[in-house]
Amino acid sequence: MSETNRTEISSLGEFRLIERLTKNFEIHNASTILTVGDDAAVIDHFGKQTVVTTDLLIEGIHFDLMYTPLKHLGYKSVMVNLSDIYAMNAVPTQITVSIGISNRFSVEALDEFYEGIYAACEKHGVDLVGGDTSSSQKGFIISVTAIGEVSPDRFVKRSTAKKGDLICVSGHVGGAFLGLTLMEREKKIYLENPAIQPDLEGEDYIVGCLLKPEARKDIIEFFASNEIIPTAMMDVSDGVSSEVMHLCHQSNLGCVLYEEKLPIHEAARKAAYKFGLDPTVCALNGGEDYELIFTLAQSDYDKITLNEEIAVIGYMTEPEKGYQFISKGGNTHPITAQGWNAFES
Amino acid sequence: MSETNRTEISSLGEFRLIERLTKNFEIHNASTILTVGDDAAVIDHFGKQTVVTTDLLIEGIHFDLMYTPLKHLGYKSVMVNLSDIYAMNAVPTQITVSIGISNRFSVEALDEFYEGIYAACEKHGVDLVGGDTSSSQKGFIISVTAIGEVSPDRFVKRSTAKKGDLICVSGHVGGAFLGLTLMEREKKIYLENPAIQPDLEGEDYIVGCLLKPEARKDIIEFFASNEIIPTAMMDVSDGVSSEVMHLCHQSNLGCVLYEEKLPIHEAARKAAYKFGLDPTVCALNGGEDYELIFTLAQSDYDKITLNEEIAVIGYMTEPEKGYQFISKGGNTHPITAQGWNAFES
Repeated sequence: MSETNRTEISSLGEFRLIERLTKNFEIHNASTILTVGDDAAVIDHFGKQTVVTTDLLIEGIHFDLMYTPLKHLGYKSVMVNLSDIYAMNAVPTQITVSIGISNRFSVEALDEFYEGIYAACEKHGVDLVGGDTSSSQKGFIISVTAIGEVSPDRFVKRSTAKKGDLICVSGHVGGAFLGLTLMEREKKIYLENPAIQPDLEGEDYIVGCLLKPEARKDIIEFFASNEIIPTAMMDVSDGVSSEVMHLCHQSNLGCVLYEEKLPIHEAARKAAYKFGLDPTVCALNGGEDYELIFTLAQSDYDKITLNEEIAVIGYMTEPEKGYQFISKGGNTHPITAQGWNAFES
Repeated sequence: MSETNRTEISSLGEFRLIERLTKNFEIHNASTILTVGDDAAVIDHFGKQTVVTTDLLIEGIHFDLMYTPLKHLGYKSVMVNLSDIYAMNAVPTQITVSIGISNRFSVEALDEFYEGIYAACEKHGVDLVGGDTSSSQKGFIISVTAIGEVSPDRFVKRSTAKKGDLICVSGHVGGAFLGLTLMEREKKIYLENPAIQPDLEGEDYIVGCLLKPEARKDIIEFFASNEIIPTAMMDVSDGVSSEVMHLCHQSNLGCVLYEEKLPIHEAARKAAYKFGLDPTVCALNGGEDYELIFTLAQSDYDKITLNEEIAVIGYMTEPEKGYQFISKGGNTHPITAQGWNAFES
């Protein structure tokens, strides 16, 4: 963006800013009765259950604006929340977006951010119904709340897996972590010598995993059209190991996972080798994949073989067996969570 | 808090921290099907409309921890959101709370914060159903989303006031701004000379307005039991002038306000004189009162005279008359918004 095309946020004021940022949002759901511009949004539901989830994204903690285009950031901010709604086997219907911004942001920069929000809403049939805009002393702060709906007999918790259930994961895992590794490496090189331009050649796949994750609406639709209800489900935000342990812990079960079954994309595997990393470790412990991980009654196995986007990676056991990982060589290792911990020093 | 009683957040980890912070929350509403501990919360509604609102509170922008006890901050963070729900003539039922915190916070400090959240939920019959906990690089960040319900025929927008309607406000206005003025003054004195202890003697009222606002559940209950539906309503967060102008603008009307009708508490008036401020200016332009401002058909006037907590401060006019303020001396001034503007430089 050239500086000649810069509008100061202060020249608009909060209300005109919100008006500007939200004027292009169309309503997708008949249930959206009242949206941005009042104290609160009104949503109509009849005989459906409302699902609500919220995430806080903070610059320097969750994202780095040095390598995250604002449009992608807007898109991803919505995706991480929709992913939580899908993880309930629910359909997202509305979101609210609050932002805290410092003066270094121009209106054009926020336009870009909201373009990403808009694209995400459009793709997933979701309405932006509210939010809050504030200044921040330092850094960009984003808080998104998503609301969805589900029939009372269809929502899926984490705590209801059964012994013998298959453990399944959608898509591929580990790619976002490798994308982050690449970006951090290139950032470091650039900071040491700004004359060296980032080398992202051939790494579109892992960069895409990091910057433009896609919440798995398709999987939820596949469940609905094939009469599948997982026994337990969550989304993969902190890494497969960590999430499997949550499912086991909350369902009071153990598990067995197979290394050879982990769905690792060929491009991610190559990138891992290039960076001197073990692809399996990236898949188990890398976060931000926003895939769905779920358990399924063995009797439903035939139904999921129809979908190439679903991999069976193990099964649930009695709790006494603990959390076991079987390597390609046939060795058994205990699974430990090395996922994201916000407060690790 | 003594340092001997300090538990590092890192010693708990995110999930145990959330567990610890939320374990004392009881469920108030039969509609709360699933709460903290899963990807999202599930809320059941039948034939009612869901109302959702969200606010972002950032340290250094919205609050100053030098004079804001964490328990009060927790309480207020909930109140500012419930106030938005009441402003729709709706009843709050659930909230989500997300926080971003730096390492300088101990678990005990967060306990205090959540004690305030808990007290607010308890008092207003609201369930905490979710949230997100994150580290922040700098400062304390709070994002609250509140959900409420209302019958489809009872919700009240900002845009539906009619010409001739009475403009009413609940409680008293201007106190929170005076509380802030006092606290900022004492903070400045303390920073210049830490030996001087803050002098809040006799200023309980304005300090309470700032630190412990109370969302006006009672007014909404009064409306319900007296078959009153305001024609338009919002809450007073940015000052009476600013809010009246919103009601006028969105309803395409003008207004007349009377200085002598503004409900200013005697303690606030005294404090204003002490600080060399005009109480009327504080009432019009000071924010954070979290009172309700609403318009009412003149035919409902008799009903509200029953409630001493409601003051009629003016009436709506045709738009051509603009926004008029009649001083005690009988002079007419135009009303201008000098309320909060997040992006003023």
